[in-house]
Amino acid sequence: MAAKNTITKNEMLKIIPLGGMGEIGKNMTVFEYDNEIIIVDCGMSFPEDDMYGIDAVIPDFNYVLDKNKSVNAVIITHGHEDHIGALYYLLSKREIPIYGTKLSLGLIKKKLEEKMMDKANLMRNVGAGDIIKIGNFEIEFIRNNHSIADSCSLYIKCAGIRIIHTGDFKIDYTPIDGQVIDLQKFAEIGGKGIDLLLSDSTNAENPGNSRSERIVGNTLMELFRGCKNRIIISAFASNIHRTQQIMNAAAANGRKLALSGRSMINIVKAAQELGYLNIPQDLIIDIKDVKNYKDNKIVILTTGSQGEPLSALTRMAAGEHKQISIKQGDVIIMSASPIPCNEKMIIDVVNNLFSLGAQVIYSKNTSDIHVSGHACQEELKLMISLVKPKYFIPVHGEAKMLIKHTEIAKEMGVRASNVFILQNGDIFEINKREAKADRRINVGITLVDGLGVGDVGNIVLRERRTLSQFGIFIIVATMDKNKLISGPDIISRGFVYMRESSDLICSATKLAKEIILKCEEDNIKDWVDIKSRLKDKLGSFLYEQTGRSPIILPIIMSSTTIAK
Amino acid sequence: MAAKNTITKNEMLKIIPLGGMGEIGKNMTVFEYDNEIIIVDCGMSFPEDDMYGIDAVIPDFNYVLDKNKSVNAVIITHGHEDHIGALYYLLSKREIPIYGTKLSLGLIKKKLEEKMMDKANLMRNVGAGDIIKIGNFEIEFIRNNHSIADSCSLYIKCAGIRIIHTGDFKIDYTPIDGQVIDLQKFAEIGGKGIDLLLSDSTNAENPGNSRSERIVGNTLMELFRGCKNRIIISAFASNIHRTQQIMNAAAANGRKLALSGRSMINIVKAAQELGYLNIPQDLIIDIKDVKNYKDNKIVILTTGSQGEPLSALTRMAAGEHKQISIKQGDVIIMSASPIPCNEKMIIDVVNNLFSLGAQVIYSKNTSDIHVSGHACQEELKLMISLVKPKYFIPVHGEAKMLIKHTEIAKEMGVRASNVFILQNGDIFEINKREAKADRRINVGITLVDGLGVGDVGNIVLRERRTLSQFGIFIIVATMDKNKLISGPDIISRGFVYMRESSDLICSATKLAKEIILKCEEDNIKDWVDIKSRLKDKLGSFLYEQTGRSPIILPIIMSSTTIAK
Repeated sequence: MAAKNTITKNEMLKIIPLGGMGEIGKNMTVFEYDNEIIIVDCGMSFPEDDMYGIDAVIPDFNYVLDKNKSVNAVIITHGHEDHIGALYYLLSKREIPIYGTKLSLGLIKKKLEEKMMDKANLMRNVGAGDIIKIGNFEIEFIRNNHSIADSCSLYIKCAGIRIIHTGDFKIDYTPIDGQVIDLQKFAEIGGKGIDLLLSDSTNAENPGNSRSERIVGNTLMELFRGCKNRIIISAFASNIHRTQQIMNAAAANGRKLALSGRSMINIVKAAQELGYLNIPQDLIIDIKDVKNYKDNKIVILTTGSQGEPLSALTRMAAGEHKQISIKQGDVIIMSASPIPCNEKMIIDVVNNLFSLGAQVIYSKNTSDIHVSGHACQEELKLMISLVKPKYFIPVHGEAKMLIKHTEIAKEMGVRASNVFILQNGDIFEINKREAKADRRINVGITLVDGLGVGDVGNIVLRERRTLSQFGIFIIVATMDKNKLISGPDIISRGFVYMRESSDLICSATKLAKEIILKCEEDNIKDWVDIKSRLKDKLGSFLYEQTGRSPIILPIIMSSTTIAK
Repeated sequence: MAAKNTITKNEMLKIIPLGGMGEIGKNMTVFEYDNEIIIVDCGMSFPEDDMYGIDAVIPDFNYVLDKNKSVNAVIITHGHEDHIGALYYLLSKREIPIYGTKLSLGLIKKKLEEKMMDKANLMRNVGAGDIIKIGNFEIEFIRNNHSIADSCSLYIKCAGIRIIHTGDFKIDYTPIDGQVIDLQKFAEIGGKGIDLLLSDSTNAENPGNSRSERIVGNTLMELFRGCKNRIIISAFASNIHRTQQIMNAAAANGRKLALSGRSMINIVKAAQELGYLNIPQDLIIDIKDVKNYKDNKIVILTTGSQGEPLSALTRMAAGEHKQISIKQGDVIIMSASPIPCNEKMIIDVVNNLFSLGAQVIYSKNTSDIHVSGHACQEELKLMISLVKPKYFIPVHGEAKMLIKHTEIAKEMGVRASNVFILQNGDIFEINKREAKADRRINVGITLVDGLGVGDVGNIVLRERRTLSQFGIFIIVATMDKNKLISGPDIISRGFVYMRESSDLICSATKLAKEIILKCEEDNIKDWVDIKSRLKDKLGSFLYEQTGRSPIILPIIMSSTTIAK
């Protein structure tokens, strides 16, 4: 279908972020015109510390699940979890074609397979430089650089409005695959006049330029050269260029390489199959065979650069890895920078490794073993300078990053009234004459817990929080009308160690019995009242005795009612 | 009593860390000779992330509570929580004299008062340069520099062994109070021959020198000068020199200063009473009166530099502070560096403040608004160089810091076999001929939860962890022998929102009833067996249905037994 490039008088193009604003994670943006929707990215984020037991957070899909809207495509900029991780949940609800580059689609396929979902029929492969037309929209994929291969920015045209969405990007003049971000294209498009730039804000607070991925290769080569010990290196599994450089350094120094960690093994396999990794012959050995080689002939490439509790490196550091025991002299290279909420976990792993006699090379004692995948201030300025947008929206960042990015745009000459900071759910509307963001839709978040999607909300989270701090204190009694016929018994979990607190439990039991008998005496028949008295009085008693406020749960059983 | 400086042939001086090794926090070290003990510092630490509901962690006091030992003193190096925070709990168990400088004792007094404890009779004021004799021990207090005033290192002599314990220290050639660390004294003592140096390792990974506290004063003066907005500044309450500089900058720029946060108000009061703060006349106003002044006439000094959930700044950022609402243009200065485990909380606060329109000046966008209180590598080298110890033990640090510090000592010429990395509980023994650390005592940690000290252990923590992730699922039934007479009923907390999961609850109730009736049929009379079946089968059922593993708690009530 041809793109309609005519301007409909009363209709504005709407852009609605469902995630990714004021946060790092769950990027998802709706572009809507004339009831036709395309979505850019569909990512997940990790739960906040106070989201007890939650495995993942995904955007609220309600808006795009509306039956009256035609959702024609999800366009994927690159294959990171915060851009693809919620696709499984969206595709469970609705069949929507997915457009992305070969590697992005390969990683999506792997993810869906893990959850036993096959949507090969929906996958549409697009290469950098390709232009696709979907309903009202025309979208061109533009090569950029990022910490994953085959990443693209998007040039979106709709109703006469020209938009660049950078996706995640950096400018790497010497990338590992030789594919430098297509600055000519940005310049060419910018020269024609761009209405709106949406640009990555992750590093907006960082002055200067990000460094080239190639720097890491040089550092690795230096570290490997002449090293007599076993080398264990952790990196993000999806950073395939990093993996390539590690493999190159291993091969150049006559070492074999073993992979550890499920996602590392899976992604290396997928990347190799799709032609993104050039693995030197006979390089890879099975982790079981590491013991058959001398220490200076081995590199182990592993997950766990963020100290994730179940990751391979964390298990090695804790002495719980099946095949690999850390030993004196092992050289451990943490080739990633800590994400703030993971700092403590990473430090614990580093300390454990040091304690086992390893030398740990990490961000604190060596630079140049990791570079960022996001543009710093000078690169952001270059992008604005090439694109010369009329309107500017910073995306992909916490509040402080978005705000800093708007300051940069304003310094670069974007008019202050044309700069918009959006929140998830804000409706940005634009046509040739004007742009505004004065309306919004109600947009929440959806919590994933085990197999449940959206079935855990604030009440359950609040209960989990209280349970985590103080535990639960249960009083159970059987009654015949308002007459106590059995109990009360007391059971607690996560409160105090019952066997060592028999005095407290005895006193509480005695108190509970007094309360129930007093209710009997006062002829209180409504169990709700009896429970409420038990709750209040035992709550006060326990707080006085212990300074803690567990969930108090009175259970009264009828003596006669058998469940249906 | 005179110190006995003679060497008893078979007796070695023992040094046993009960806390502070392999961690930042709960510093406490036992020095023991001839059944006489002195303790250096008695601090608390903050709970690890997986210590759900725990308020504080303190050292295991069992060793020093042994009735056969004479514990003659606790020597306090300085008044930080990780050096004094466990004194309340120790003094609750045993009366021991406390020796410290005036400010340390003042802060201890405040802390004990908060918990309604008066131990004024035990406080022994010692000044820098003073020498005290306690049983076998002679202890000299040596002025040092740190991020709290009136901090000292200790020169300990016992049984002919000469020891320097640096405590926490840095070298500040231009400290705010003019009291430069007494390098002459260290040099003089070092010249006489030091057997053992125990030295602060916090910044052992950081090259160069720490910067002078005075730098912060200059930065503050610049930031305050010409600022037209309200200034809100957060700092550690105990950093009295920082407070002094903030007060000076406020006064010099014609601003009034209001205090916010309980610990800030308390410590400023104590420091002023003891003569450690020189507060310009009419500087301080009540926080309630802030509204009566123009924005450029106000500084608010507040707690919350670590994003602590209940702190004043966090409440301001959340719009929950009674007196102060953050407004457009407010300048917020975070004059502290993030402790790793607090990074996420701090970032949340910073983002909230930015979102409210404030300019936030913090470690990411401005240096020189905070300096560390701990010696960096060049200062550690100077200390070793002045003291020239025969034996060396790094203290006050995580494994990676202790290890780095030993590398520094070895580079400086301390013999490798004379360098010891201890763990809490290791017994370091030394006499004039030798030193060793081949024995240890069993030493745990003690968890403080509300009013309970040590009554929460691993079992309760494990329950809290499971509760926090999955909640609890309770099946309750009343039985007469093995005959079901009421129920089963199902109640859950923190698992799923019951009202929206009625199908799941119905199916689970049905299953529970089937299990009980099957037991009846199979003539199983032991309730332990029935409960075990309920637990297993409902556990599997719920995991299949939800992917979650809540605590399954079957409760069977007898139909006839009333509690005594």
